[in-house]
Amino acid sequence: MKNKNCNQQQILKKRPNGLPDKNTWELIETDLKELSDGEMLIEQEYISLDPAMRGWINQTRSYIPPVEIDDVMRAGSVGKVIKTEGKTIFNVGDYVTGWGGVQTYCITKGENFYKVDIQKAPLSYYIGILGMPGMTAYFGILEVGEVKQGDVVLVSGAAGAVGSVVGQIAKIKGCKVFGIAGGKTKCNYITDKLGFDGAIDYKNENLIEGIKKHCPKGIDIYFDNVGGEILDSALIFLRKKARVVICGAISQYNAVSNIEGPKNYLSLLVNRASMKGMVVLDYAPKYPEAMKQMALWILEGKLSYKQDVYSGIENFRETFLRLFSGDKMGKLILKIKE
Amino acid sequence: MKNKNCNQQQILKKRPNGLPDKNTWELIETDLKELSDGEMLIEQEYISLDPAMRGWINQTRSYIPPVEIDDVMRAGSVGKVIKTEGKTIFNVGDYVTGWGGVQTYCITKGENFYKVDIQKAPLSYYIGILGMPGMTAYFGILEVGEVKQGDVVLVSGAAGAVGSVVGQIAKIKGCKVFGIAGGKTKCNYITDKLGFDGAIDYKNENLIEGIKKHCPKGIDIYFDNVGGEILDSALIFLRKKARVVICGAISQYNAVSNIEGPKNYLSLLVNRASMKGMVVLDYAPKYPEAMKQMALWILEGKLSYKQDVYSGIENFRETFLRLFSGDKMGKLILKIKE
Repeated sequence: MKNKNCNQQQILKKRPNGLPDKNTWELIETDLKELSDGEMLIEQEYISLDPAMRGWINQTRSYIPPVEIDDVMRAGSVGKVIKTEGKTIFNVGDYVTGWGGVQTYCITKGENFYKVDIQKAPLSYYIGILGMPGMTAYFGILEVGEVKQGDVVLVSGAAGAVGSVVGQIAKIKGCKVFGIAGGKTKCNYITDKLGFDGAIDYKNENLIEGIKKHCPKGIDIYFDNVGGEILDSALIFLRKKARVVICGAISQYNAVSNIEGPKNYLSLLVNRASMKGMVVLDYAPKYPEAMKQMALWILEGKLSYKQDVYSGIENFRETFLRLFSGDKMGKLILKIKE
Repeated sequence: MKNKNCNQQQILKKRPNGLPDKNTWELIETDLKELSDGEMLIEQEYISLDPAMRGWINQTRSYIPPVEIDDVMRAGSVGKVIKTEGKTIFNVGDYVTGWGGVQTYCITKGENFYKVDIQKAPLSYYIGILGMPGMTAYFGILEVGEVKQGDVVLVSGAAGAVGSVVGQIAKIKGCKVFGIAGGKTKCNYITDKLGFDGAIDYKNENLIEGIKKHCPKGIDIYFDNVGGEILDSALIFLRKKARVVICGAISQYNAVSNIEGPKNYLSLLVNRASMKGMVVLDYAPKYPEAMKQMALWILEGKLSYKQDVYSGIENFRETFLRLFSGDKMGKLILKIKE
């Protein structure tokens, strides 16, 4: 049982080479400092675990600066304002989401935090389908992929937090949708529960044969969350004017040597296709509109959503590693409020 | 001295593994057949030698079907109509350009042939700056690259038939333009003669250092003709929303094993950039408009153009190989009319 005046924090201690290990983070306890004017104390309830976090602990600057050594590990979170000092932008009792980090409490003036409505959706949804992964899926398939009715859409990481939503939105838009996932359980989930038109089990099937079987005329959109061999195989099947959305490359994030480039990239030339990268933060001004639409689809039963929730801030690392072992279903979340 | 009734033809005999060798083509002589109604006999003067031709002799279908074994090698050409039979679309004395192939005479009904005006430009220009390479440069930088004033543009194969024109058009459009080329002569040519703002000699300089020196704030457009390590290095320097135009990959066309994929492709993600393939044939309906503009720029002295002309159909293979050895300057052409 943790002390009410004590903050438990996962601190970055050492940049990993490959998968994060026991030396990467350290769980420490610090006393909660007094609030200054304008500051709020947030009791954090859920932490979002996302593949992108692996990139943030590399030395190199990516689309945001790296987490520094001895800093609290960066993470999206949801929690409740339990104390304020002076004039603050939220009130005690408000639920908020933001970059709370991997810690049980967070003190902030509220920059980049947003109030959420737990009457409309469960709190944890705001770091999932109504948070970054959901927004990524929404803008990725609609704006970057420029999806249109009748498109053949292939999604990798199809049972994951982003891929599962990408596929369902493409179905809503009238596409033929196929997913690539690891294992029978995930493949059944995306076809039986999410309504994908077909699934390719990359752990037990030949990828190229699988894509050929499901998409004999090729694909109009390939939404990539994984990179590596799967990206390479998908490129073979591009149709004329196809769009490849580069959303992530989970297979490469822990690479210790050079990462693998897509050998079949000349398919872009032959097929006048494009490969486009995206960072969801660019769409922040349009989040409210997207959240409204997504919430409506959930209400209408058109969007199904699965969370895989683990508990305990002390289990952060081993839970995080499930992202890369594939040992989770849907959105991976760490519950840190006891 | 060839017989007036005899056609010399380079015939594809064996698909090469790697660089074409002595067994790839065979030079044969055939009797010219009688013309049927609507047919024209074209005496060919110049053959265009382009890197893309290497792709056409692979087994696999690319954006056009492969050249079949025992067929005349496909090539763009210019020549003169010297005989017609019945009602034909061109007249005796007309100069035309089209897919005449590597042969001294060509019999055609004129599908995909265009009449050219030798008063406006030298005949050979119609397979160069006013032909496929020129059109590729024009639509590649303007429509695929979406060039705009102030962009920092990097071009590989910068002294070549396409790259040299891409860079000059970007200069006309008010960009900072840098080129990558092999050797001091080519580098001097693109800066001193073509007005590029700088050159990187990939044979004698460290690529990454060179790009960093010339483009310290990164690049908005990378126009790629070569692939491989050069593409990979350029990707490191993409600015936000940068465009990579995949026009060719001359470094990879003769690869005997897997081609090299761009290891740094995740720069597309981090920088919300795009990589887009192009095939010039898609722009055929707009060629006349582009040719008019290019001819005007040539006239105004804004576009400089260099041809490297070799002679003799019997020298086809060794001349063609200069494309890959880099041993030529500007547009490579084979003169086949004695």
